[in-house]
Amino acid sequence: MKAYPVYIDNHLLSSSEIFQKHIHGHQVFIVTQKNIAELYLGVLQKTLQDYHCDVIFIPEGEKNKNIFEWQKIIEQLILKHHERSTTLIALGGGVIGDMTGFAAACYQRGVNYIQVPTTLMAQVDSSIGGKTGINHPLAKNMLGAFHQPQCVVMDMATLTTLPEREFVSGIAEIIKYGLIWDADFFSWLENNIQLILEKNSAALKYAIERSAAIKMHIVAEDERDHGLRQLLNFGHTFGHALESATNYQTFLHGEAVAFGMKMAAELSHRHQGLSVDDVSRIENLLKRAGLLQNPVEIPDLMSYMKRDKKTQKGETQFILLKKIGSAIRHQNLSS
Amino acid sequence: MKAYPVYIDNHLLSSSEIFQKHIHGHQVFIVTQKNIAELYLGVLQKTLQDYHCDVIFIPEGEKNKNIFEWQKIIEQLILKHHERSTTLIALGGGVIGDMTGFAAACYQRGVNYIQVPTTLMAQVDSSIGGKTGINHPLAKNMLGAFHQPQCVVMDMATLTTLPEREFVSGIAEIIKYGLIWDADFFSWLENNIQLILEKNSAALKYAIERSAAIKMHIVAEDERDHGLRQLLNFGHTFGHALESATNYQTFLHGEAVAFGMKMAAELSHRHQGLSVDDVSRIENLLKRAGLLQNPVEIPDLMSYMKRDKKTQKGETQFILLKKIGSAIRHQNLSS
Repeated sequence: MKAYPVYIDNHLLSSSEIFQKHIHGHQVFIVTQKNIAELYLGVLQKTLQDYHCDVIFIPEGEKNKNIFEWQKIIEQLILKHHERSTTLIALGGGVIGDMTGFAAACYQRGVNYIQVPTTLMAQVDSSIGGKTGINHPLAKNMLGAFHQPQCVVMDMATLTTLPEREFVSGIAEIIKYGLIWDADFFSWLENNIQLILEKNSAALKYAIERSAAIKMHIVAEDERDHGLRQLLNFGHTFGHALESATNYQTFLHGEAVAFGMKMAAELSHRHQGLSVDDVSRIENLLKRAGLLQNPVEIPDLMSYMKRDKKTQKGETQFILLKKIGSAIRHQNLSS
Repeated sequence: MKAYPVYIDNHLLSSSEIFQKHIHGHQVFIVTQKNIAELYLGVLQKTLQDYHCDVIFIPEGEKNKNIFEWQKIIEQLILKHHERSTTLIALGGGVIGDMTGFAAACYQRGVNYIQVPTTLMAQVDSSIGGKTGINHPLAKNMLGAFHQPQCVVMDMATLTTLPEREFVSGIAEIIKYGLIWDADFFSWLENNIQLILEKNSAALKYAIERSAAIKMHIVAEDERDHGLRQLLNFGHTFGHALESATNYQTFLHGEAVAFGMKMAAELSHRHQGLSVDDVSRIENLLKRAGLLQNPVEIPDLMSYMKRDKKTQKGETQFILLKKIGSAIRHQNLSS
C-alpha cells in the first residue's frame, strides 16, 4: 500500500494549496451533513471555488450509513455528470467518511476521494486506513471496500465545535495507540493529558500526529486486515459487545472501547503477565481522560461477543498486552 | 496485478482438484441462473461436496444486473453466515460473472471468488481482468470494482449447449485479439475458422487459450484501465453506440462489436494507413465467422456515441489499427 499525506493543523479547510495538490480533475463532490455544513461548508466551498463543485447532505447518525443513502450519493454523481476524474470529499465524522469512501470505491469502478474528518475519533481512527463501508440491515459494516484516500486533511479548528463527550471519546483511541505500539507515547500522554483536554494546540497536534503515524504504519504493513492490523482491535472486542448489548444507545464508541481496554488490560495481566502496575497506569490514564465513567455491569457480555464479526469463526481472538506499548494476538482465553 | 490461473479444457466442472486448490475456507456460495443450473449445477455441486455449499439463482438477462439482485446475493451471504473466508463461484455468462464479482468485492470488504464462465463471450472476455459491476437505472456499469478472481475455470463442454448465435458472438472478441495484438493469431484464425465453428476441440481450445493469454497480458500491465487496456475497446465505441441506438434489442454484444470493428477498420485505413488488403481480410474473416449479417444503417450513430462513457470527456478516443496485430489510440477523428 502506498502511504499518503495526512495534514494536521489549524484552519486547513481554507488551504487551497493542499486541496489543489490532490485534486486531479475539474470536478469535486462534497458529502457532508447539515449541522457540519452550517459551520464549515462555506469555507470549504470558497477554497474549492476553482472547481465544479456539487454537494450532497446525508442525514446524521450511524443508522443512515445504509444502502439507501449510499445509492443517493451514486445517483447524484450520475445526474450531475461526474466523470471518472472526479474527487469526492468527505466532510464530517466517521459515518460520512465511511460512506463517501465506499461511494468513491464503487462509482465507475473507483474514483479519488479526500478525507476531511471533523471529529477527533474520525481524525485519529476512521479517516486513515481506507476501510470504507456501509451497514446492512442484518449486520454492521457488511458492505465495503478497502479504498485509500488521496490524502487526509485534519483541520484541528473543527474540534473547537465538537461536543466535549465526543472529544473525550476520541481520546480513547489515542490512548490505544500508546498501549499497543509506543510506551513512550503512553508516558507522554500521562504527562500531557490535561493539556489535551484543554485543547492546547501543540499538545493536541502531537497526540493526533503520533496516533495517525502509528495507524498509517500498521495499515501500510497490512492493508487487508490479515495480521498486524488486528492489533488495532485492542479493547474493541469487548467494546463492540458492550455497544451491541446496549443497542448502541448508551455509549459513544470510544467510551465503550475504554471499558473494553480496561477489561483487556485485566485479561492481559492474567494471560500475558502484564504487571499490576501497568494495569493501574492504564486505568488511571483512562479515568483522568474522562473515560470509565458510570461503571457498567454487563453480565451477558460473552453471548454478545459471539455475534461479533471477529469472533464468528468459533474461536475468539483477543488482543492482549505483554506490557504497555507491546500488543499480541491471543487465540484462546481458556488456554 | 498478480496473474492467476486460467484453466481451459473439457469437463473441468468435475475437477475437484482444481477447485480445491483455489478454495481456502470451508464455505462456497454459487451464483447462477435457472437455465444454466439445470445443465451444470448438479455436477458442480458434486465436485464441491466437501464444502458447505449454498446456491442463489439470479433471473436471466442484462436487466437483472442491478442493485436489487446484487443486494439479494449479499443478504443471502449474511443469512447463511458466510464468513470472510468464503468463496463465491460465478456459474454462468457475463451477467452472472460481473454481479458475483461485485458481490465478492464488497461483502465484508472483499472475499474470494472463482469465475466459471459458461458462454464463449464470458470465457474469452468478461471472466478475465477483474472488471466487476452492476448497472444503475441511469447508466450501465456505473457501480463496480476491480476485483480479480482466484482463478477462471473454463469448461469447454459447456459450449456444446450454447445457442449458435451466442457462440458466434463470442468469436467476434476472439478475432479482436488477433487484430489488436497478434498478426500470427489472426492468420491462424483465417486458416482455422471453419474448425472453430465446428467446435473442433483442439482448434477451439487454442483460440480460447490465445485470447485469454492476450487479455491477461494486457490487464496485468494496466489493471485499472488507464492506458494499454483501452486497446481492448477496439470496435467497442461503435459497437456500444449500435447497441444503444437499437435499445439492446437487435444485436448480441459480439454482433455489434463485429460491425464496430468493420467501421474501425475503415477509419483505420483513412487515418492510420491500414492497407485496403487488410481491411478486406478483416471483413472477410468476420463474414466467414457468421458475423456482419443483415447490413445495418444507423444514420445517427454519432449522437449515440457521445453518450458513451468513453466519449463523455468531450473528446472521443478511438482505437484504430496501423496494421493487423497492431492497435493505437487515436484522439481525434477530425485530425
